Amino acid sequence: MAIKRIGSQTVKFQNPPSIISTYTIVGPKEGEGPLKDYFDMILEDDMWGQESFEKSEAKIQEEAIKAAISNGKLTNQDMDYLLAGDLLNQIVSSTYSARSLSIPYYGLFGACSTMTESLSLGAMLIDGGFADNLVCATSSHFSSAERQFRFPLEYGNQRKFSAQWTVTGSGATVLSANGNGPYITYATTGKIIDMGVKEADNMGAAMAPAAIDTLLTHFKDTGYSPKDYDLIVSGDLGKVGKAIVLELMKKEGYDLTDIYTDCGVEVFDIQQDTHAGGSGCGCAAVVLNGYIYKEMMKGKFSRVLVMATGALHSPTMNQQGESIPGIAHAITIDVNKD
Amino acid sequence: MAIKRIGSQTVKFQNPPSIISTYTIVGPKEGEGPLKDYFDMILEDDMWGQESFEKSEAKIQEEAIKAAISNGKLTNQDMDYLLAGDLLNQIVSSTYSARSLSIPYYGLFGACSTMTESLSLGAMLIDGGFADNLVCATSSHFSSAERQFRFPLEYGNQRKFSAQWTVTGSGATVLSANGNGPYITYATTGKIIDMGVKEADNMGAAMAPAAIDTLLTHFKDTGYSPKDYDLIVSGDLGKVGKAIVLELMKKEGYDLTDIYTDCGVEVFDIQQDTHAGGSGCGCAAVVLNGYIYKEMMKGKFSRVLVMATGALHSPTMNQQGESIPGIAHAITIDVNKD
Repeated sequence: MAIKRIGSQTVKFQNPPSIISTYTIVGPKEGEGPLKDYFDMILEDDMWGQESFEKSEAKIQEEAIKAAISNGKLTNQDMDYLLAGDLLNQIVSSTYSARSLSIPYYGLFGACSTMTESLSLGAMLIDGGFADNLVCATSSHFSSAERQFRFPLEYGNQRKFSAQWTVTGSGATVLSANGNGPYITYATTGKIIDMGVKEADNMGAAMAPAAIDTLLTHFKDTGYSPKDYDLIVSGDLGKVGKAIVLELMKKEGYDLTDIYTDCGVEVFDIQQDTHAGGSGCGCAAVVLNGYIYKEMMKGKFSRVLVMATGALHSPTMNQQGESIPGIAHAITIDVNKD
Repeated sequence: MAIKRIGSQTVKFQNPPSIISTYTIVGPKEGEGPLKDYFDMILEDDMWGQESFEKSEAKIQEEAIKAAISNGKLTNQDMDYLLAGDLLNQIVSSTYSARSLSIPYYGLFGACSTMTESLSLGAMLIDGGFADNLVCATSSHFSSAERQFRFPLEYGNQRKFSAQWTVTGSGATVLSANGNGPYITYATTGKIIDMGVKEADNMGAAMAPAAIDTLLTHFKDTGYSPKDYDLIVSGDLGKVGKAIVLELMKKEGYDLTDIYTDCGVEVFDIQQDTHAGGSGCGCAAVVLNGYIYKEMMKGKFSRVLVMATGALHSPTMNQQGESIPGIAHAITIDVNKD
C-alpha cells in the first residue's frame, strides 16, 4: 500500500505543507455580511472597472493570487505551480488570470469543491517533493454564474427559497514546504455521489449526500471523530444542505450540532435576502482564506476540517433530463503538526 | 529546492510510475484513419445507443476507463484516484463517466492538453507515495464539441482549411507504482501563453507558441536534445500548428524535421477531408494510448516525448473580443528507467 495512504480515500502527509499566506477579495454584498472584517479587500463595485462580469471575475482572481504571493513575501517566480479553477465554462477566470502570472499551471474543475481539490493536490505536490511553494485559488461571481447556469439577470427571474446566492469573490492560498503552519495534515478525496436531485435551484440537496459520504469516510479512514475537531465546515451547502447533513449524520451516530457549520450559511446574514445562503467556488475560498485561516492564526481554532462541496451541475445535461452529481473533498488543517 | 525538481518547470521522477495498461475507443471516422489498427474498439455508430452526443461521449469515456483497468488485471477498487477531464462545459463526460465508477475523483480542465495534465499529476501522486494505482482519462466527440464551441451541425457551416476535426474517442491509462514499463520519467508543466490569435477555426496557431515554450523549457531543464528521443509528438496542433513549430524551433537551433510529428496530423488521412487534421482531448488520448504505447511495447520507440496542447478557447470570451490562450504539458515516456 502506498506509504502515505490510510484507509480507502485518505492521505496522511508525512511532511505536512504549511499555509504561509492567504488573500481574499469579495464583492460589495459579501462585504456587508457577517464575515466582512475577515476579508482583505472589499470591492465597491463588482465590475471593478472591467467591461464584463467574466473579465471582472478573472481580475478578482488574478489580484487575489498576486496579493497572496506578496503576503507570503514571495514572488511569482518562487511559485512552482498554480492550481486553480472556477465555475465558468472553460474555467476562464482561472485561465485568463493565469495568463499574466507566468506560473506553471494546472486547471481544475470541481465546481464549488475546487478550493479543497486544489489544496489536496497542492499539498501532495509539496509533500511529494515536487514543489517548494505553490499557490491554490478559486473564484466565483454572482452575475457571471447566474447567466451561465440559470437565467440572465435582465430577466428579473424570481428565486426559490432553496436557491443560494453565488459569492462574488476569490481566495488564494500559498502552500510551502517551509513554514510555521497552519499545516494541511490529511486529505480525503471524494467520489461522485448522485442521489437524483435535478433542481438547479436546490444545490444544497444535490451536494449533501456527497458531503455525508466524504465525512463518514474521513472519520473511518483517520480514526478521528467530531470531538477531535474544533470546527467542521462544509463548502456551500447552505441552509437546506446543512440541515440534511445534520440530520443524516445523526442517524449515522454523529451529533455535529455544536461543531459543524457551512460556509454558505456563515457568509451572508438572513437580512441580506440570499434565501438558502451563499454558494460558488468563491464561497469556501473566502471563508477558508479569510475567517478560518485568520481565526486559526489567532488561536481560536486548533484543528479544522474543511470540506468544499461541488454540485457538478450542467445546464446541458439538465435539459437532457439528467440529475446533478455531487462531490466533496475534505482537508484537515492543524495549527500544530501531529 | 524540491528534491524532484530540475530546472524551472520540470520534475524528474525518482521512482518512475509505470504505464501498466491502456484502452482506446474511437468513432467510425477515426476507425477508417491511418491508425485504425492501433485502437482497441471502433464504434460503428458514434451515438453508441445513447440519446445525445454528450451522453455518448460520457459512455465512451466510461467504457475506456473500465476496459483499461480490466486490461491491467485490476478492479475499480484497486484505483486510488481517477484523474479525468474533457472539452465539454462542466467536463460532463468525465463527471457522468465517474459517477458509476466509484473511484476518488479529481476533475481537470486543460482543454486538449488534459491527457498529459492528468498523466503528469498522476505520476506525481504515485511517485509521491499517495497512490499505488490510478487511472487517467480524457475524451472528446466531434458532434458535442462542434455545437458547443462553434456551430450546431444542423447549420451545415462551411469549415475553413485551418480548422481541425475533433476526434470522437477516449483513451485511458492505468499508472502504477508496480510495473515493468514503459515509465513516465519526466514531466514539464506548461505556462499559459497567448500570442493574440482569436480565430476559433485556427487552433493550431493559437497553441503552437505554448508548444514551443514547453519544448524549449523541457530541453533546457532536462539537458535532453531532440537526438535523445525516438519521437517527439505534440497533441493536436494539426498541419498549421505543426508547420509553425518546425519553423520556429529551427530558428531556435533545433531541427525537428525527422523526429517530430503531431497527433492531429497522424490520426486522419488527407483523403478524409478533415482539413488541418484532428483535435480534441481524445486526439492525443487515442494516439498516445493506442499507437505510441503499442509501438513502445513492440520496441519501435524507446523514449518518446508526448506533449498534449490545449487551446483554452471560450466562446464567451471570444465574443467579448478576447484571444485564445494556449498551454502545453510534456511528459517523457521511457521503456527503461534511467
